[in-house]
Amino acid sequence: MAEKADALKITRRDEDYSRWYLDIVDRAKLAEDSGIRGCMIIRPEGFAIWEKMQQTLDGMFKDTGHTNAYFPVFIPVSYFSKEAEHVSGFAKECAVVTHHRLQLTESGEITVDPDAELSEPLVVRPTSETIIWSAYRNWIQSYRDLPILLNQWANICRWELRTRPFLRTTEFLWQEGHTAHATADEAEAEARQMLEIYKTFVEQYLAIPVFAGRKTENEKFPGAVHTYTIETMTQDKRAIQVGTSHNLGTTFSKAFDVKYLSAEGTQEYPFATSWGITTRMIGTLIMVHSDDRGFVCPPRIAPLQVIGVPIYRKDAEKEQVLARFTELQEQFKATKAFSFKVDTRDNLSPGFKFNDWELKGIPLRLEMGPRDLANGTAVLVRRDTGEKINVAQTDLESQIKTLLEDIQISLFKRAQEFQQQNLHFVETYAEFQQQIEEKAGFYVAYFDGNSDDEEKIKEETKATGRCIPFDLQQGTGKCFYTGRQTDRRVIFARAY
Amino acid sequence: MAEKADALKITRRDEDYSRWYLDIVDRAKLAEDSGIRGCMIIRPEGFAIWEKMQQTLDGMFKDTGHTNAYFPVFIPVSYFSKEAEHVSGFAKECAVVTHHRLQLTESGEITVDPDAELSEPLVVRPTSETIIWSAYRNWIQSYRDLPILLNQWANICRWELRTRPFLRTTEFLWQEGHTAHATADEAEAEARQMLEIYKTFVEQYLAIPVFAGRKTENEKFPGAVHTYTIETMTQDKRAIQVGTSHNLGTTFSKAFDVKYLSAEGTQEYPFATSWGITTRMIGTLIMVHSDDRGFVCPPRIAPLQVIGVPIYRKDAEKEQVLARFTELQEQFKATKAFSFKVDTRDNLSPGFKFNDWELKGIPLRLEMGPRDLANGTAVLVRRDTGEKINVAQTDLESQIKTLLEDIQISLFKRAQEFQQQNLHFVETYAEFQQQIEEKAGFYVAYFDGNSDDEEKIKEETKATGRCIPFDLQQGTGKCFYTGRQTDRRVIFARAY
Ligand SMILES: [Zn+2]
Ligand SMILES: [Zn+2]
Repeated sequence: MAEKADALKITRRDEDYSRWYLDIVDRAKLAEDSGIRGCMIIRPEGFAIWEKMQQTLDGMFKDTGHTNAYFPVFIPVSYFSKEAEHVSGFAKECAVVTHHRLQLTESGEITVDPDAELSEPLVVRPTSETIIWSAYRNWIQSYRDLPILLNQWANICRWELRTRPFLRTTEFLWQEGHTAHATADEAEAEARQMLEIYKTFVEQYLAIPVFAGRKTENEKFPGAVHTYTIETMTQDKRAIQVGTSHNLGTTFSKAFDVKYLSAEGTQEYPFATSWGITTRMIGTLIMVHSDDRGFVCPPRIAPLQVIGVPIYRKDAEKEQVLARFTELQEQFKATKAFSFKVDTRDNLSPGFKFNDWELKGIPLRLEMGPRDLANGTAVLVRRDTGEKINVAQTDLESQIKTLLEDIQISLFKRAQEFQQQNLHFVETYAEFQQQIEEKAGFYVAYFDGNSDDEEKIKEETKATGRCIPFDLQQGTGKCFYTGRQTDRRVIFARAY
Repeated sequence: MAEKADALKITRRDEDYSRWYLDIVDRAKLAEDSGIRGCMIIRPEGFAIWEKMQQTLDGMFKDTGHTNAYFPVFIPVSYFSKEAEHVSGFAKECAVVTHHRLQLTESGEITVDPDAELSEPLVVRPTSETIIWSAYRNWIQSYRDLPILLNQWANICRWELRTRPFLRTTEFLWQEGHTAHATADEAEAEARQMLEIYKTFVEQYLAIPVFAGRKTENEKFPGAVHTYTIETMTQDKRAIQVGTSHNLGTTFSKAFDVKYLSAEGTQEYPFATSWGITTRMIGTLIMVHSDDRGFVCPPRIAPLQVIGVPIYRKDAEKEQVLARFTELQEQFKATKAFSFKVDTRDNLSPGFKFNDWELKGIPLRLEMGPRDLANGTAVLVRRDTGEKINVAQTDLESQIKTLLEDIQISLFKRAQEFQQQNLHFVETYAEFQQQIEEKAGFYVAYFDGNSDDEEKIKEETKATGRCIPFDLQQGTGKCFYTGRQTDRRVIFARAY
């Protein structure tokens, strides 16, 4: 068993936080490197989490009147010229399709056919604003066609130099909402509503507390009126953006010449929003909750919530124990109380299985052996605390339900306390510069500087303005950078 | 209203079948041309159908033990060299990524940056066998790692010269299952099981009767041991392949050098299957059921099953009628009996709305006006037959449920009768050549010819061997092409 046990070992966080992260992704079989630059394979265990995220969010989008559609993965280069600000923002590093045929050479090699060059190169979508607003030009004629409340689940490609599974990959999966409204107020309300949906989802399902707020000038989406964001803190006390929502004003309707006839008979530009979350959220989940024993997955987003590990020595014991597990499996399936599986692998010891399922982040473990059955009891083990709880067989289902809820809440509280402990208020820039070197964390300061000021702060401290948090605005004070009086507070932090 | 009524007009089938198909796709807002060669935009109405297909099939896949995963959209050209037979099959016409950056020229144009050429070109996936089997090389070590039962929902790109929305597009959406098994028997059973799942889904949800069978040598997937298919007949009596399932034997495990240690301690090649269905299924749905008034969608796959159209003149009537519709909406929502919406657009006449919803294929229409309310009745109108049914208000929910089931079954029966009427048995090749010119349809013949014979038949008649149907094998007869005695019957038809 020595090599097998090694396969379950992961680097400790205090040893090497980056390595720890990669070990969890790898050993919990969430994703693996594909061998193709910057592209990962999302393995079944990781993809099942994405599916649950998708299902839940999709339901929330539909409940607020949104429908899904699908736009082409290929965007002609010329589309980007229409929105120059857009391009300088992020569309430069991307995958460009220039040819449409391979050929088999005489030596049996497969190469690009030079005769099959495209007249206009196509970009593999880095985001779909341009192609969607090209379509909206035909869809929007009158105020009766508004609002358009549309979402797309898709794969996205941005050529990245330095990649890390889930957190930054050349190809990733995401959802992009693109809406069109008759008024600026409606667009603003939509952008705020979608941020609120993200916050609710992330806090209630992923058990990740977030700071919701508006992006500063320097950090907002190119061309946006406002960018809203939810930001959380990893265990190495850096910031990570979990979701964003943009009020895009008339930037895109003007760029793509989309107008509508108002009820009053005038031609008007519609107002846009866009909003998205990505597979990055799985990386955030790992970074916020996991520990030195592996992945920790909150019950409400865990594809498998409870794992059963039978304990036996003799064949007769095995038969008896497995029979009871089968009974429970049928019971839990019938009541749909939670998802449950039994680890029946007979070439592995219970101890190995314990470690294996802890590494994989299953919230709760149910252990039962002949002695437990004789006593009419069973043992439940919490993944978050390691606590072992003796439970009467008759109470199993209700106890498991209660514990799963408790784990969900505990994970949220633990992360929230950690965030609060590492949230610091600073008054002067000197104080900030000194403190952020000494201890990582989120720093709140009065700030009314401009984009250039933010760039300088970034150069000098590697920290960026994460957001103007809705919940931390109070009173007025002296901007820690310009010295001017302001009522705006900003969270600064080093970020992923 | 004249222009508006025109917007609902579509070409008749007997006038121009191809135009009729395109009109339905366009006017029912299922999809539209994106302006990017061969790529369509799947509009919300069309995408909602795909979502229902996905959900239903995904549930069936999971019930049979499959899980989803996600592999990169980019496949290095060199991967294709490993499976040469694969390439000559279909991978030549594809989108090739050669560069990874755009640049803004001094004249403000956006062009491909010539300095950012990739060392190895990447193909946008035309199918994922090669990349998935590259990964399986790491995943499969021992017999304990088998079977691997995996599926992927993804976008796919094959460069097509002549495209038609849903039926043949450069980019399309699909699902591709890729499994690995310890024995040839298991792989064969899996391939057959998945075909059976497709058949069940297509017949029970899409109300499309199919012929299930094995592909002939000439038509099977390159490198497959067996390819299984379900084929149906369009209203212009051509064949369309709805889904396929392949027993791939050890072709891919050998090409990618994947071996496993058996329980007996020997190194063995695992056996593969792959199986898929695509957005083409939406095109098939249109081709099989729709009529000269527009799209016809079977109730079980229709995103919206019942549309309510209020009928009123005066404001007081409007209020009364809408109040009753609101009541019903709440009732049907609470009982989750079926999906229901009310068309409250007040700038359109009931007559226009009738046509509009018929064009969009909504299975059942509920009309109510003040007179109906006074009588305690309502009118239901079937999309498939146009039949109007007077129903008591108290019976509405149960009557609607019954009618939806009846429409589902009627659509299947109608299509089945049509297929049977256009299924012909021929004994000689001369007879076949003459008949297929005179009347389109499916032709069943004894056939034991080889791939060359099939090619010649295709050249001479434009018909291909669609399948060796499981249900039509009986006795023996003389092959209609070679004259040899055989027990194999094949369906020949002209196909989409
Ligand atoms: Zn504002
Ligand atoms: Zn066989």
